[in-house]
Amino acid sequence: MTDFARTRALFDLPEGVIYLDGNSLGPLPRHAAAHVARVMTEEWGTQLIRGWNGAGWFTLPERLGERIAPLIGAQPGSVTVGDTLSIKVYQALAAALDLVPDRRVVLSDSGNFPSDLYMAEGLLRSLGRGHELRVVAPEAVAAAITDEVAVLMLTQVDYRTGRLHDMKALTDRARAAGAITVWDLAHSAGALPVDLSGCDTDFAVGCTYKYLNGGPGAPAFIHIAPRLTDRARPALSGWMGHAAPFAFEPGYRPAAGRARMRVGTPPVIALAALDAALDVWEGVSLQAVRRASQELADLLIAEVAARCPELTLASPRDAQARGSQVSFAHPQGYAVMQALIARGVIGDFRAPDLLRFGLTPLYLSAEDVRAAVAILAEILDTRAWDRPEYHARAAVT
Amino acid sequence: MTDFARTRALFDLPEGVIYLDGNSLGPLPRHAAAHVARVMTEEWGTQLIRGWNGAGWFTLPERLGERIAPLIGAQPGSVTVGDTLSIKVYQALAAALDLVPDRRVVLSDSGNFPSDLYMAEGLLRSLGRGHELRVVAPEAVAAAITDEVAVLMLTQVDYRTGRLHDMKALTDRARAAGAITVWDLAHSAGALPVDLSGCDTDFAVGCTYKYLNGGPGAPAFIHIAPRLTDRARPALSGWMGHAAPFAFEPGYRPAAGRARMRVGTPPVIALAALDAALDVWEGVSLQAVRRASQELADLLIAEVAARCPELTLASPRDAQARGSQVSFAHPQGYAVMQALIARGVIGDFRAPDLLRFGLTPLYLSAEDVRAAVAILAEILDTRAWDRPEYHARAAVT
Repeated sequence: MTDFARTRALFDLPEGVIYLDGNSLGPLPRHAAAHVARVMTEEWGTQLIRGWNGAGWFTLPERLGERIAPLIGAQPGSVTVGDTLSIKVYQALAAALDLVPDRRVVLSDSGNFPSDLYMAEGLLRSLGRGHELRVVAPEAVAAAITDEVAVLMLTQVDYRTGRLHDMKALTDRARAAGAITVWDLAHSAGALPVDLSGCDTDFAVGCTYKYLNGGPGAPAFIHIAPRLTDRARPALSGWMGHAAPFAFEPGYRPAAGRARMRVGTPPVIALAALDAALDVWEGVSLQAVRRASQELADLLIAEVAARCPELTLASPRDAQARGSQVSFAHPQGYAVMQALIARGVIGDFRAPDLLRFGLTPLYLSAEDVRAAVAILAEILDTRAWDRPEYHARAAVT
Repeated sequence: MTDFARTRALFDLPEGVIYLDGNSLGPLPRHAAAHVARVMTEEWGTQLIRGWNGAGWFTLPERLGERIAPLIGAQPGSVTVGDTLSIKVYQALAAALDLVPDRRVVLSDSGNFPSDLYMAEGLLRSLGRGHELRVVAPEAVAAAITDEVAVLMLTQVDYRTGRLHDMKALTDRARAAGAITVWDLAHSAGALPVDLSGCDTDFAVGCTYKYLNGGPGAPAFIHIAPRLTDRARPALSGWMGHAAPFAFEPGYRPAAGRARMRVGTPPVIALAALDAALDVWEGVSLQAVRRASQELADLLIAEVAARCPELTLASPRDAQARGSQVSFAHPQGYAVMQALIARGVIGDFRAPDLLRFGLTPLYLSAEDVRAAVAILAEILDTRAWDRPEYHARAAVT
């Protein structure tokens, strides 16, 4: 039985804020800053270069991988941490394509996060072998998995609508068609139970700054099925993924296991923040998180339906078909979100017209959701969003 | 006139340590941990997602690029920060090759850092167009710049010996031969004056965890000559390098300027540590650093010659031909370095037999160098290195 009162006490949310944007950036775990300060002063400051062995910095990517693995249903020894999610997408897709040299189609969907599609576009252009990035509607994916497809590359939870793909069914279908899978878990890891082993996926990647609360721009992770590791040839063949990085051999030899998915020097300070953030998950059941998150989301949808008739639900109504976020459309969505943020209710806006809210019981209660909708309803009823300052676009929205 | 007493006071070196390994990992600048703690608690903790605009996280990569630019003689607007150096090498080499589509040779030398060669190997294999990575001896580089060469990819300062390439002469020769240059400044930035503008280089990359003291695994930087930016097509085409990242367009359009060299979400906590570390350089003249570093290195060489006859100088004797580090060969180099570290004199070992010492006046004095050599001489004279524990290899050496 997960005690969400305990987890709420682990976060340092500011007074007067209802935070419905953990799907974009998770909040600060209370003890993370002290842990990072300790790593900086006691490890870096005192051990200096000796910290690579003495403080275990060198193995941090794999040790954090072991902490993330149970959250995504991955086998021990199959996850490592580093770089950004965009880099990890490139790395996974390059290795996947290398395993299917005779096919030329990468299948994805229009619900995939644009950076995944951009990275694929850059990779395929570099390869220069006539690969096609075939992007279909989310509901058309299953039927589009043909024997032309080299790699099926999908984000499990749609970043705009929260629509959830059936990972097991699509992975089975891809395998049957001879395609390799690359799953992006950006909006899944820490939001809902994921069962990579049970689904027998090939590659998976994800970020740690959303539901895993690792901090702005926290390092990404990559999972590779152990049955594939020794066949996967790294395109990003950096020294930290070499079999003997400190032998300084002239040629690249990939390390055994997931370590070949390491590239450059591990970002120790960022990894330290993530290490502290992962403490939050001790004793937390993802099944309990999922149930409580669905209750919060259903409550949000019901309250909005009752009190905000101007908003149109843009997420699946069925909780089983959604991840942990809910979106609503409004023609003035950007301004409405700015007005809402000005009142302390923080969600985010996604072009062209979506108000997006993430719901995680780690630090959110039903009272928070009711209070947020009351403020939203008041803003809509009084047209409080219709002020020039709420229409001015910031650099990042 | 640079006041090195001032800069020494900015570092928190532990009692009893003489740190001669800033060429591998710079020490902790005294105020960096407090700055990172402030960014974590006051920015992330309080502003949450709003920090991307409110605290300026979104523009941190370019703002730090502006702080690094004067240290490497780069034009304003030409440097951005992020990822690891291995990734930046890949990115620069891919963009460089794209500019010379009709040639098939990447020229480098055996003094280049192995990860640069590994990343090139991975990229060339992915391209699959018959490119050759041609690795010659450092002294043979100039003569090997022929009209077959697409890209000249070199590290300015040899990581083992400290040998310094003539950046101006080699860049001129490459340009005359129609080749693009990619310079790795890992052991140059913060160690000696670099004049990218004056040399009219094409691409340059570097790390910030050595002489720039950004912390273990701190983010890398990339420079692109402004005359090339709009022609450089990013292979690592991530959303943060898109012309309109938050428009979430289906296709990639590179941003104007150096911003197209951004890839994924900026690592804010790691960037904060680097931001603090760059404060150290305010009022510091790199010419003064260079002069003082050469004096320290000449002192080290003279003291070792006088007191440690078993050691053979493996670096150029001429200070003008060296970077900021000095190496000596000893058949039991590994064990000697372990014995030295156990006595508080921290350098590092590079296979097969090199003792390597970095010399930066920011926190080192002539007294430190004399004291270090006294301990080294005693260890050699008494064969104190010949103990089993000094022969046992650690994971990272």
